[in-house]
Amino acid sequence: MRLSTYQELEPTARVGRGLSCTNYCIIFAVLFGALLAILETEPTLYDPFRGLFEVAEGLLPILFSVEYAAPLWSAADAPGDASSLAKRGRFFISLAGLLDLVVLLAAWAPFFTANLALLRIVRLARIARLAKLGRFSRAAEHLHYAVTTRAYELLLAVSLALILLVAGATALYWAEGTVQPDKFGSIPRALWWSAVTLTTIGYGDVSPVTPLGKFIAVLVAVAGIGLVALPTGILASGFSEAVQRDRKADNQ
Amino acid sequence: MRLSTYQELEPTARVGRGLSCTNYCIIFAVLFGALLAILETEPTLYDPFRGLFEVAEGLLPILFSVEYAAPLWSAADAPGDASSLAKRGRFFISLAGLLDLVVLLAAWAPFFTANLALLRIVRLARIARLAKLGRFSRAAEHLHYAVTTRAYELLLAVSLALILLVAGATALYWAEGTVQPDKFGSIPRALWWSAVTLTTIGYGDVSPVTPLGKFIAVLVAVAGIGLVALPTGILASGFSEAVQRDRKADNQ
Amino acid sequence: MRLSTYQELEPTARVGRGLSCTNYCIIFAVLFGALLAILETEPTLYDPFRGLFEVAEGLLPILFSVEYAAPLWSAADAPGDASSLAKRGRFFISLAGLLDLVVLLAAWAPFFTANLALLRIVRLARIARLAKLGRFSRAAEHLHYAVTTRAYELLLAVSLALILLVAGATALYWAEGTVQPDKFGSIPRALWWSAVTLTTIGYGDVSPVTPLGKFIAVLVAVAGIGLVALPTGILASGFSEAVQRDRKADNQ
Amino acid sequence: MRLSTYQELEPTARVGRGLSCTNYCIIFAVLFGALLAILETEPTLYDPFRGLFEVAEGLLPILFSVEYAAPLWSAADAPGDASSLAKRGRFFISLAGLLDLVVLLAAWAPFFTANLALLRIVRLARIARLAKLGRFSRAAEHLHYAVTTRAYELLLAVSLALILLVAGATALYWAEGTVQPDKFGSIPRALWWSAVTLTTIGYGDVSPVTPLGKFIAVLVAVAGIGLVALPTGILASGFSEAVQRDRKADNQ
Repeated sequence: MRLSTYQELEPTARVGRGLSCTNYCIIFAVLFGALLAILETEPTLYDPFRGLFEVAEGLLPILFSVEYAAPLWSAADAPGDASSLAKRGRFFISLAGLLDLVVLLAAWAPFFTANLALLRIVRLARIARLAKLGRFSRAAEHLHYAVTTRAYELLLAVSLALILLVAGATALYWAEGTVQPDKFGSIPRALWWSAVTLTTIGYGDVSPVTPLGKFIAVLVAVAGIGLVALPTGILASGFSEAVQRDRKADNQ
Repeated sequence: MRLSTYQELEPTARVGRGLSCTNYCIIFAVLFGALLAILETEPTLYDPFRGLFEVAEGLLPILFSVEYAAPLWSAADAPGDASSLAKRGRFFISLAGLLDLVVLLAAWAPFFTANLALLRIVRLARIARLAKLGRFSRAAEHLHYAVTTRAYELLLAVSLALILLVAGATALYWAEGTVQPDKFGSIPRALWWSAVTLTTIGYGDVSPVTPLGKFIAVLVAVAGIGLVALPTGILASGFSEAVQRDRKADNQ
Repeated sequence: MRLSTYQELEPTARVGRGLSCTNYCIIFAVLFGALLAILETEPTLYDPFRGLFEVAEGLLPILFSVEYAAPLWSAADAPGDASSLAKRGRFFISLAGLLDLVVLLAAWAPFFTANLALLRIVRLARIARLAKLGRFSRAAEHLHYAVTTRAYELLLAVSLALILLVAGATALYWAEGTVQPDKFGSIPRALWWSAVTLTTIGYGDVSPVTPLGKFIAVLVAVAGIGLVALPTGILASGFSEAVQRDRKADNQ
Repeated sequence: MRLSTYQELEPTARVGRGLSCTNYCIIFAVLFGALLAILETEPTLYDPFRGLFEVAEGLLPILFSVEYAAPLWSAADAPGDASSLAKRGRFFISLAGLLDLVVLLAAWAPFFTANLALLRIVRLARIARLAKLGRFSRAAEHLHYAVTTRAYELLLAVSLALILLVAGATALYWAEGTVQPDKFGSIPRALWWSAVTLTTIGYGDVSPVTPLGKFIAVLVAVAGIGLVALPTGILASGFSEAVQRDRKADNQ
């Protein structure tokens, strides 16, 4: 029974592709817990349904405790020659085990301190561990390949973006620092405008009013298109290569 | 005559590429009906031209009735050994037949209930059925190939985006929850800001005001660029492959 | 002399790559004229420098007249057996000739009617004719190839965008039509919001206020990312192919 | 000792990949100096910590003086037959030397004139010289290749964007010039709206109010998507080629 528990819980031990039924239940419980933690912060929802929320919050820690105890207990059936205790200890200090411990503590936290409630969103990280498995494994590999082989290109693009960010803020500080001192009166203040413009968000709480400021803003905005186009182009070429490499490996 | 009606209406039965003249008329009628349904909701347009709108609305259901009866009647000439009634029944329960039935009901709906007027936009779906044919078939295949072969990569990108969405909202709820309680007072409220920022829309109705909130917002906004760059890169590589595959098949 | 004028003016007749000096002067004059037409509309600039503007506006039509007469006169040296008059007639009714005529009329227009002043921006089209030549010819070919070979894919993406536009507007009309009647009171009004959101501009003059409206808006906004990602991916694959094809042709 | 100083400072003379420890220190000092220059402009930060800022500002020029003197002195060990003085002179007038001189002057500037304080951000350019080296060299080559081989395509895209910018501004000037004279009363004023819309920023300080203006704005906005998609597609294909070329060179 302990062996089948191990196979049910440990995704790498599973025969065939896909996740086990138990793991789907865990994903559902984690998502449900995260949704609960999100909705509880809204007083107009929490106050009328306080009872329901409290019942659900009381059940989840128990579920997560079982969910933590089960792999710890069944870890004794992990492959290898070590003793049951050593295998359990290895699971305890493994990344997966520590992650589960954080999830468990996060689940129990609201009973002791109200402020730690937000910690429960940490549970979402639990899914990330499972996401590597199942049908997503190939997609995750492609994503990983595209990002890691282009890491320096992306870093260079980010560096260029940072220089543009500072240059834009400095230019507007110089052009409109005296006209709108509360918005462009210092470079740190102008950086907020610069970031909102370069990412093409444009909330509208800060925008230049003088012709010179507007002219500089247009130059910064056009350069901001490059800021979006550069990483997109880099990632696109990375993805193409990742998939081509995969296809070639399949053909051989 | 029934056979020629069948060939005229059923795009797959047509000799040669392109749509038949009748199908172009149907597309025109559907688009005209949708435009009518859109413009009718605007009182400053509907009130002065009420008569014109009513005449057009009276003609369209008749047109769609004919358009529904014709393929049902001519379905008897579809290839196969079944009886005429069986072939008509098969068309009736086919996706195309059910879609036409919805379009027909949507066309007659305004005569019975005013609130169903919006259903008439459903007619647009009628075009989707024809879009698969004609010169768009190859483009639709490429699009379909790019999206389906990269489905898990796109899903992974959406998952990352959702985690970023929740993380951004939680961070701003923590940073500005007490400063702007009506905007960041709960995670569901902060999610609106998070979504508007990550998609780089930035309406400006919600934006951080404290230095800490602005700093976090910049981090979220920069990560939001990746949110746009990732699916773009994935789709770009998917399209490249779809077209290359098509060219290779043509050459062989 | 007429022959050298012809070779100087007609870009295709030129020996070697690049544009002739005269053509660079024409580009400069056209750009200067367009800048003049733009700046003249600004009263705070026009009123103090009225004299300067009038002198420049008086010189430009003369320049453009010469510029129109010269190719018409030198067209007699175009290759071919036809008579000088026939060749000139052919230039007169050619696209280039008609474009030059429009530019000439646009240059003289302000002397007769003040309202036609805007026509002078038409002169910019004059540059488009020269842009096909010189070092840009290859880039223009790549651009042309990427757009034309992917024309149906791009049209399909535009169609999907239009359906999304109408669907988003209808959903918000249904969700907030009674809450904000001046902004979402009819589908045409809601279309403005829909367009501003899908293109991720987000002016902020129209945005949903109810939780349901905001929820639908987030779905529309996320779909809007695909609206940007799809054509980008299509064009990226088109460009890759255009350049690869060019390289192959160079190698053979 | 002079030779080891030269090898420590000149990145190209270094054995093996990566930057020397001294160069990492210089990068840190430059970044620290830039951060200092940025934070000093904020009165709410500068006033309470004036003493700390002044000490740091006093130390940095000394550091940069040493940092300028060291390569000048050690330049005598650069490869080549020229005399020590000639080699030092060559370093003095080289791009690297002049850049260092500007950085040095920028460091000393605040002692003489307060207004030159912003010049200190110029120091960031110092990093650009080092960025070419180390592990970023390959990424920088790819970036350089993607941008230079696609220079004319990108220029063409920028030209199309400029024409669209002027056309959009002219259209809105014509449509709303009399309705909102302070915002669309002249083409230069309308250009601000046009730029903010085409880059999809959308501050919201200027937006059309009439149905005609809104209709034109939607057309401009949709065209603006192409403005982002075009350079992204161009750069994506450029990156793909740069990396493929690199891989091929590695295999041979």
